[in-house]
Amino acid sequence: MAASAENERPAMVSGWAARDPSGVLSPFKFSRRVTGEKDVTLKVLYCGICHSDLHNVKNDWGFTSYPVVPGHEIAGVVTEVGTRVTKFKVGDRVGVGCMIGSCHNCASCGDNLENYCPETVPVYGDKFNPDNDGGTINYGGFSDIMVTDEHFVFKFPNNMPLDGGAPLLCAGITVYSPLRYYGLDKPGMHLGVVGLGGLGHMAVKFAKQWALGKKEEAMNRLGADAFLVSQDAEQMQSAMGTMNGIIDTVSAAHALLPLIGLLKTHGKLVLVGLTDKPIELLAIPLLMGRKIVGGSVVGGIKETQEMINFAAEHGITADIEVIPMDHVNVAMERLAKGDVRYRFVVDIGNSLKSC
Amino acid sequence: MAASAENERPAMVSGWAARDPSGVLSPFKFSRRVTGEKDVTLKVLYCGICHSDLHNVKNDWGFTSYPVVPGHEIAGVVTEVGTRVTKFKVGDRVGVGCMIGSCHNCASCGDNLENYCPETVPVYGDKFNPDNDGGTINYGGFSDIMVTDEHFVFKFPNNMPLDGGAPLLCAGITVYSPLRYYGLDKPGMHLGVVGLGGLGHMAVKFAKQWALGKKEEAMNRLGADAFLVSQDAEQMQSAMGTMNGIIDTVSAAHALLPLIGLLKTHGKLVLVGLTDKPIELLAIPLLMGRKIVGGSVVGGIKETQEMINFAAEHGITADIEVIPMDHVNVAMERLAKGDVRYRFVVDIGNSLKSC
Repeated sequence: MAASAENERPAMVSGWAARDPSGVLSPFKFSRRVTGEKDVTLKVLYCGICHSDLHNVKNDWGFTSYPVVPGHEIAGVVTEVGTRVTKFKVGDRVGVGCMIGSCHNCASCGDNLENYCPETVPVYGDKFNPDNDGGTINYGGFSDIMVTDEHFVFKFPNNMPLDGGAPLLCAGITVYSPLRYYGLDKPGMHLGVVGLGGLGHMAVKFAKQWALGKKEEAMNRLGADAFLVSQDAEQMQSAMGTMNGIIDTVSAAHALLPLIGLLKTHGKLVLVGLTDKPIELLAIPLLMGRKIVGGSVVGGIKETQEMINFAAEHGITADIEVIPMDHVNVAMERLAKGDVRYRFVVDIGNSLKSC
Repeated sequence: MAASAENERPAMVSGWAARDPSGVLSPFKFSRRVTGEKDVTLKVLYCGICHSDLHNVKNDWGFTSYPVVPGHEIAGVVTEVGTRVTKFKVGDRVGVGCMIGSCHNCASCGDNLENYCPETVPVYGDKFNPDNDGGTINYGGFSDIMVTDEHFVFKFPNNMPLDGGAPLLCAGITVYSPLRYYGLDKPGMHLGVVGLGGLGHMAVKFAKQWALGKKEEAMNRLGADAFLVSQDAEQMQSAMGTMNGIIDTVSAAHALLPLIGLLKTHGKLVLVGLTDKPIELLAIPLLMGRKIVGGSVVGGIKETQEMINFAAEHGITADIEVIPMDHVNVAMERLAKGDVRYRFVVDIGNSLKSC
């Protein structure tokens, strides 16, 4: 089915959008393309709220195009599939995460790392993509229907709840992927997590799973061994040189040198929080301890599905607070203050009214 | 033989020392311990001049204790061995590098990474080590005799010239070790080297050996494919996103963000130049390209011997300018201006007069 024909009879969708940098969300009616031959259409049931949604609706990064319908931790049920779809059928429990497109031709795509493709299409807010809905800006998961190329759709195993599973698609993969890539997924490792929010609490759960196995992980809810207050000089001093790796999830400006000091020789500090503030480092601690500072952003499609399956196998989900759609503005305010343990998830299926 | 007995009949040594932060070197008589049971004594024939020697004699780092006898790229011939020495015999062609001691008990020592041992003893300028010569500060290779625990002595293969081989012990291992550790030793890799000095030119030689093999390496003297002027915006722009890794040998303050821009996705920027100036970075390029900034300092004893053997096998030596001992002050001035291709080596054996 040609794109033009699709656009001639678009599906009407109800969602919530921010219209300006106040970031206040309100009901918003828009269209999506009808199900193309490689598309999966899903009824959205849950959508997580990520700190980057908050940055986006407030135009903190300066590139938001309004109206913006946020939401990139999307879980729901398949309602229609295109004629050439092979991986999904109606009724499947599925998800859509941060990406809905990539070039499929570059080295990153060839390595199943669409997240590093220079032409990655984010799930919302990309006004330049010619494949967008109606040729305009694309819209995210705070809406009742998604239409997405099957390559970018994930399957949730039957034992994975969709509400606690939705945050895996950003918060989960954002910490799972670097823990794997940087070799921090080995038994006996002593890891640190900076920022115990949506990403951080998932990092603790995955790290604990690898470090100690399922039994010990169950001993307490998250499984962290110790909580270190970075403003407490004495606590920090006593933890110097003790960690194999640190996953730093904080997107606000903060000092990295004290964190590098916490690392053992050959330790790795991995940044996953999107901050545009300059970072000040010194070379000598990196040289003298052969330490590294690295980055990572979400994960590829294949790895994300692996992470979902791994989480389902080990009973790992996000700790969530489920809210109705019309509670979203309050939730955004609370998120800005860090007042959530540890992820808001909007109950789209039961609370989003058609507009 | 007990340390006290050794110190009762010290060997007198002739060398050159700097007495104050002017950094000017002049003849200096001092003592070393006689050959202990695990010691190797060598007649020094050649000693390279490293930029860190220059920093040391001028007290640039603020911790120099005068008088300082620099020199940590030392090559010579064994003249005496202790009763329990097993690896060396009189007449062997040997070297001593940056380290002469470590704790032998920590995790780093257990991993043959004495260079990351917290109690590493540098070859000169360490006044706190109880095992020092005469209980005072220890002295480096600008001297006619060295007495060193055999664990920290290297063997030069017969086909390795001692003058061009001496700089392997710092310049060589400082770049060889990170190229190996950071996985930049694979065929087909596109690597960058920042700073074409003593370290940088060795990095080009090793990288070229791995990238293309011996035949192509011989095509020109160093084997670099291209020379990029970092001040040339057009050249830098055209090289953006092309490199798997960069070895940055520059110890002067310089911007790292343009170098990170040169890296491909998953690229690695490795700092080996000792600078105490703050480095400014941004997180986003690290995240979006899963790039890392890491450090490395020299290498362990086992790896250094491996590097020497590898260099001998492939005919890799430093490009040197051999100078007599009394030319050292002029050489230091020229080194400060980068006026050497690519390493000064002092001909100790033929030019150091007894004082």
